[in-house]
Order: sequence, then structure tokens, then C-alpha cells
Amino acid sequence: MERSFGTSRRAVVGFGDDISAVRLANDQLAVLKTDMVVGSTDVPPGMTWRQAARKAVVANVSDLAAKGVKPYAGIVALGLPRTLTKKNVQGIASGLSEAAKEYGFPFVGGDTNESKDLVISIALFGLTEARKLMLRSGAKIGDIVAVTGEFGSASAGLRAVLDRTIRPDKLPRELSQAVYYPNAQLDVGLRLASTGAITASIDSSDGLAWSLHQLSEMSGVGIRVEKVPVSRAAREFASAFGYDASNLALYGGEEYNLIVTVKSALLRAAQIAARGRLKQIGFVTKKSEGVRLARPGGDVGIRMEGWEHFRR
Amino acid sequence: MERSFGTSRRAVVGFGDDISAVRLANDQLAVLKTDMVVGSTDVPPGMTWRQAARKAVVANVSDLAAKGVKPYAGIVALGLPRTLTKKNVQGIASGLSEAAKEYGFPFVGGDTNESKDLVISIALFGLTEARKLMLRSGAKIGDIVAVTGEFGSASAGLRAVLDRTIRPDKLPRELSQAVYYPNAQLDVGLRLASTGAITASIDSSDGLAWSLHQLSEMSGVGIRVEKVPVSRAAREFASAFGYDASNLALYGGEEYNLIVTVKSALLRAAQIAARGRLKQIGFVTKKSEGVRLARPGGDVGIRMEGWEHFRR
Repeated sequence: MERSFGTSRRAVVGFGDDISAVRLANDQLAVLKTDMVVGSTDVPPGMTWRQAARKAVVANVSDLAAKGVKPYAGIVALGLPRTLTKKNVQGIASGLSEAAKEYGFPFVGGDTNESKDLVISIALFGLTEARKLMLRSGAKIGDIVAVTGEFGSASAGLRAVLDRTIRPDKLPRELSQAVYYPNAQLDVGLRLASTGAITASIDSSDGLAWSLHQLSEMSGVGIRVEKVPVSRAAREFASAFGYDASNLALYGGEEYNLIVTVKSALLRAAQIAARGRLKQIGFVTKKSEGVRLARPGGDVGIRMEGWEHFRR
Repeated sequence: MERSFGTSRRAVVGFGDDISAVRLANDQLAVLKTDMVVGSTDVPPGMTWRQAARKAVVANVSDLAAKGVKPYAGIVALGLPRTLTKKNVQGIASGLSEAAKEYGFPFVGGDTNESKDLVISIALFGLTEARKLMLRSGAKIGDIVAVTGEFGSASAGLRAVLDRTIRPDKLPRELSQAVYYPNAQLDVGLRLASTGAITASIDSSDGLAWSLHQLSEMSGVGIRVEKVPVSRAAREFASAFGYDASNLALYGGEEYNLIVTVKSALLRAAQIAARGRLKQIGFVTKKSEGVRLARPGGDVGIRMEGWEHFRR
């Protein structure tokens, strides 16, 4: 896809980052983001239409959060199967407007269509200054790698309901929340952007491992993870059902933390700005060292793998 | 849908017009538009993937054209069925980039997904000044109603291929062009916006009759059409296959002309700006007179009907 469009001088940030940005005047950028939720591949068992619509917004907001950009307005194009009832459609509308309220922006327009698959296609618009924008590129050797939350709950919860290990309504609260009611870290992203401490940033929606590889590739650096930040709920699920907790956390997805690299001298400032939500997990190394995980017996490589979409 | 979102002070133009607009600073507006093409309902027999993608762009640009706004950048979210080949996907990418080039803006980002139905969801961003924006509201009694082209070719062509009256590759050139390779009237729209002569404007993608009703409703006026502007190709098709040519023109759709109301004293200036493309078809009347068509035996009402989407 990307290559077909070439590059545009107007695009300050194009394909290949969480968002796109075009220059307006001087330092001001218009930031654009679109992300689509598809019924057959993005909506797990047990999720309501309202939750699916809310999550579609969260996924878009999370990408803006990772760039330090506040959403200013949103528009939405819906593809609705004939089988949906009026109540289903109202649920979708409620989910969209609930999430917009949570993240402080209005939906100002949209388009409704009939389609075979449920499609919720959201586009967000934001404004920022070029110098404040946190990109995937920019990590430097010696920077700290840090995250704004723990990992594994979403993939544990998804595995549980997809493999029918646990019924959706019986999921432990943390897993249920992670799957059906995730949150984008918008406030943390905006506060981190204002510190000037962040050299690169990405949201973790494609999984921790995958996102670390993106940072590595776009910044031309290696990353050494010293400790995989696994959530307690994922640990409990892993031990009860025979999964590897680290793998759940690394190779998951649909989880909306931010993964950032921080100038080491400014780590404390960034942690204060993030109000305790920023935890160091490793540091930036030479590119030739790749993306790897420290283990007692010696480092192991982190594979460039992520969560694969599921089908109903 | 609309009512669920309420109104936002940030939205200068919200649901209910061709585009949405939010205020940036002073008189400057960010204009947002999203419109989705769905394989099962929007792609007629004989249309290539490249043409479908190009048309998705045309549909979005046409709405900006009707408002006098130049597209500044676009983003696209794709839902791609598993059955599509790599060549199909390349065709889609080519159609998008071909159309973006035609209308002078770059696609700067996107999102690709798997879905059961083909979905091409485009969002466009543009900038304008509030006082230049042409809205659906604003028509005044005594204004001239004018259009930038003739009608009926798209609905004639669509009927021909959907009813299998004519094979797609045997369609007369004008009908084929109208169905598979329509154009948005961006230049005309931009030039008209700069005259200050236009009091209201809409694109005709939902059909001439439907669009006239929208202008009537949003402006709180009536409209009297004196002459339905039917294309010669639609007339020929109608007479060959026993259709009513006026009905093809009135109750069609998927046709990308602009329908505007013009201050009568400035009609000549608007026609010069539109370089001969602006033709008077009627005038604005009192609301109580409704939307009607002059006929030798007396006026008849124009129904609020439009083209219904088709299925493959």
C-alpha cells in the first residue's frame, strides 16, 4: 500500500507511524488518523456493539496519545449489516459518543452505509506543533525504554474467550476490562509530550514485541528489555491455564499502553509528568544488537510477532 | 445517528451538510469529510477495483467541491476480503493515487484490515475561511437555481448494466464514463466559491430531486424547476429502452454535479467564473410552494426520492 502513494512534501509524517501529519503554517501541524474496526475480525465473543464502537474510538485515540496529540474532532463512516436492529445501531452510536466524551472531543460528521460486515471506520483530526510531536523514530543509544502500564491482560482475556476457557461473563475483572473496556492513555501521552524528555513513542496496540521492533526499526537502534512488565491478572491466568506469562505480555496486542524512549537524564521528570505511570523496562542499544530480552542464562531475541486478528 | 451526538460548539458545520467543519483560529476552518464505498452495494457490474477506488475519492472530493473547499490531504482505511488478489489490491491503490493526483492532494496515511465486504473508507481534510464556505442553507427567495452539468447519464448507465439491458463493455461512451469514471467538479466549485454569488450549494450524488429537497429543507425555501437538464445520452437511452428521460435525470444519483443557488444580480459573474458550466434550471420560491417542476399543463411536485443502492 504505502509505496503506491510515494511521498508528499506536504506530509511531515506519512505512512509508517501511528498517525499522519501535514504542515499548516509555520510550526503547526494537522494530525490525521484513521483506524477501522471490522465485525468479523476485531470484535471478540461477548463484546457488545456499544463496547465495539467505544473500542474503535479508543484505538484511534491511543495512536494520537502516543504522539502527544489531543483529538480535536472526529468523523465516522459506518458499514452496517442489514441484520442489525435499531437497538444495535443505537448501541454503536452510544459507544462512539461515550468514548468521545471520555477523551474530550466531538464527533462532527459521518456517513452510514449498508455492508455485509460491520465496519466502524473512524478518522480523528488534531493539531500540534512539529517540535512537540513524538514519533517512532528518534530513540538514541543509552535512552531508557519505558512503558505506561502492564501487559498481558488483553491477550489473556482474549485467549480465554476465544478458546472458550472462560465464558465472557466469568472473566476476572482485570481481563474483562482489558478486553471489553480498554482505555487510551491520552492524559499520560499529552503530559509526556510536554516534558521534552521523550525521544520516541508508539502505542502498544500491535503488541509489546511488535511495537518494540517498530521503534527499533524506525529509530535505527536496538532495544534490550530487562524485565517484561506482566500484569498480575495475566500471571494468574497463565499459571492457571498453562500459558507462559511473558509470552502473553510480549506477543499480545489490543492493549493500549504507550511505549516510549526517554533521555536518561530526564527520566525522573518524565515519571513525575506521568504521575507514577511510567516504568522503565530496558534501554536503547546499538542497532546491531537487535531487540532482545535479558534472561538469567543470557539474552534471547524478541521475535517480531504480534497478535493475529481473530474470527468469530 | 446524528441526534445521538448532539451538537458541539466546536462544530461550525456538523451532521446534515456535505461536510463537517470545526473552527481553528479566527475565520479559519478545518473541513472534514468521510465517505465509504462498500463492495456489495456501491460497485456496479463491470467496474474494476481501480475504478471503484477512484470513484471513492471522487465521491469525497465532490462534497468538498460543493462547499468550495480544496482537499489538503487524505487518509484511507481499507477493509479487504481474503479473496482479493495482490493485483486487486494494487488496482485499489492505483485508483486512489490516480484520483488524488487528479484533484491535487496527497494520501498521507491509512489502515488496512481484513473484512468480508470490500470497504474503501476515505477521509479528506481541507482548510477554508468561514465566509467562503458554501452551505446547503442560505438560499433566498428570488435566487436562481443552477447546475454545473447535465443529469441522467449515470442512472441510465447503471440501469443498463444492472438490468443487463446493455453489457458493461457495450455501453455508449457517455454512459460508461458516467458510471465507471465520473469526475468531481472541484475547479468549478472553487471558482464559484470565490465569486460570493452563491447562496447555497450541494453536490448531486444522491440525485437531482433528493438534492433539491435538501437545499429546500436546509434553506427553508421552495424551489421551482423550469427545465430538467437531461443529458443527450440519457435521452437516447430513455427513448431506446422506454424510460422517462426526466425521471432518469431527477431520480438518479451517483452523479457528481453541483447544484447551487445564485444571487440573481450575480448570475452572469458566477457563469463567467464557472466558464460556461453553470446553467440556470429554475429559481427559489417560498417554502410553502415546495419543490416542483413546471409542466405545460401546470406544475407538478418533485418527489423526495433518490437512487437506491444496488446489489451485485
